Amino acid sequence: MSGSAPQRTEPTTAELRHRPRLIVNTGNGKGKSTAAFGMGLRAWAQGWSIGVFQFIKSGRWHTGEQQAYAQLDQAHRTTGVGGPVEWQSLGSGWSWLRATEGTDQAAMAAAGWAHVRTLLAAQTHRLYILDEFAHVLNKGWLDVDEVADDLAHRPGTQHVVITGRNCPAGIIGIADIVTSMDNVKHPFGKGERGQAGIEW
Amino acid sequence: MSGSAPQRTEPTTAELRHRPRLIVNTGNGKGKSTAAFGMGLRAWAQGWSIGVFQFIKSGRWHTGEQQAYAQLDQAHRTTGVGGPVEWQSLGSGWSWLRATEGTDQAAMAAAGWAHVRTLLAAQTHRLYILDEFAHVLNKGWLDVDEVADDLAHRPGTQHVVITGRNCPAGIIGIADIVTSMDNVKHPFGKGERGQAGIEW
Repeated sequence: MSGSAPQRTEPTTAELRHRPRLIVNTGNGKGKSTAAFGMGLRAWAQGWSIGVFQFIKSGRWHTGEQQAYAQLDQAHRTTGVGGPVEWQSLGSGWSWLRATEGTDQAAMAAAGWAHVRTLLAAQTHRLYILDEFAHVLNKGWLDVDEVADDLAHRPGTQHVVITGRNCPAGIIGIADIVTSMDNVKHPFGKGERGQAGIEW
Repeated sequence: MSGSAPQRTEPTTAELRHRPRLIVNTGNGKGKSTAAFGMGLRAWAQGWSIGVFQFIKSGRWHTGEQQAYAQLDQAHRTTGVGGPVEWQSLGSGWSWLRATEGTDQAAMAAAGWAHVRTLLAAQTHRLYILDEFAHVLNKGWLDVDEVADDLAHRPGTQHVVITGRNCPAGIIGIADIVTSMDNVKHPFGKGERGQAGIEW
């Protein structure tokens, strides 16, 4: 709202359709990260730049999603369809953090968040998936109030999705959409193994 | 377990990793379908054939996911990476049901399920996403017990994901993994609009 246009008090429908969202997928059940990656498909189809940042060691988790996103990124770069994807995995070493790889998890989390803050300030991506970021916050590796302040004051219409159990109240409080994925029934309780193609 | 090898009573790790799963994403919150589509990325990366069946009119919902899956399907067909994708949307007319398009929703649901049953019997896909199928079951358009029986006796290691609110107990009872996506906070409650790239 600029002072030179005081008559325009109602936002347009287009403006109402393009507000920055902070989305939290929390709870003890399946689907927190998976839904975030599913949401990224819509962002890709809109032609948005996507940044995926995995904040804990991933092992083979999400490798299927990573492969699919790499394919979508390649399709964008070669034919122009969809949007580009940046995928940074703390587990396999952040590309800009090789020198400090092997340091403690708190330091890696701090460096990871510093990177994301820089990208947010520059409005590098339109959608950020901060995978397992709630876990990092719960561990006390970052100051929740500072992170919340940075998120609340990010410029433009950058959407952020945070996943992880027990997301702190300081983040829930400023979030626009919060969903709790709760476990109703799971075979791991019966000692069964994870299934190829289902869990990874 | 063949009779010629009675000594083999313990399944191998590989066998434990390849059991057919019936997965239900239910609840009143976001992420039920989105998590199902995210799960499909893993299946794609495993090279599995995927069938997506949308059981209610989709409008523009999921069009972003559909575009991304079309790209992944094309990548498979042209370069061999990942797996193929069949995507059938009841909302835009099932391709094998044009003659009866415009008939009532119960008839369309019945025809849709008949199609999926045929595919299951032929083991056509490795992963089936039956989007909003819980809604169809709740409407009474199909017999829950018959559907549960068909699902419970599907051959091979075909995984099925069912999404939708209030999934009937007859399906929950035979499911392997059930997650309830519950709404904690959502701006629609404050009268806000859906966001491009976020809701579709």
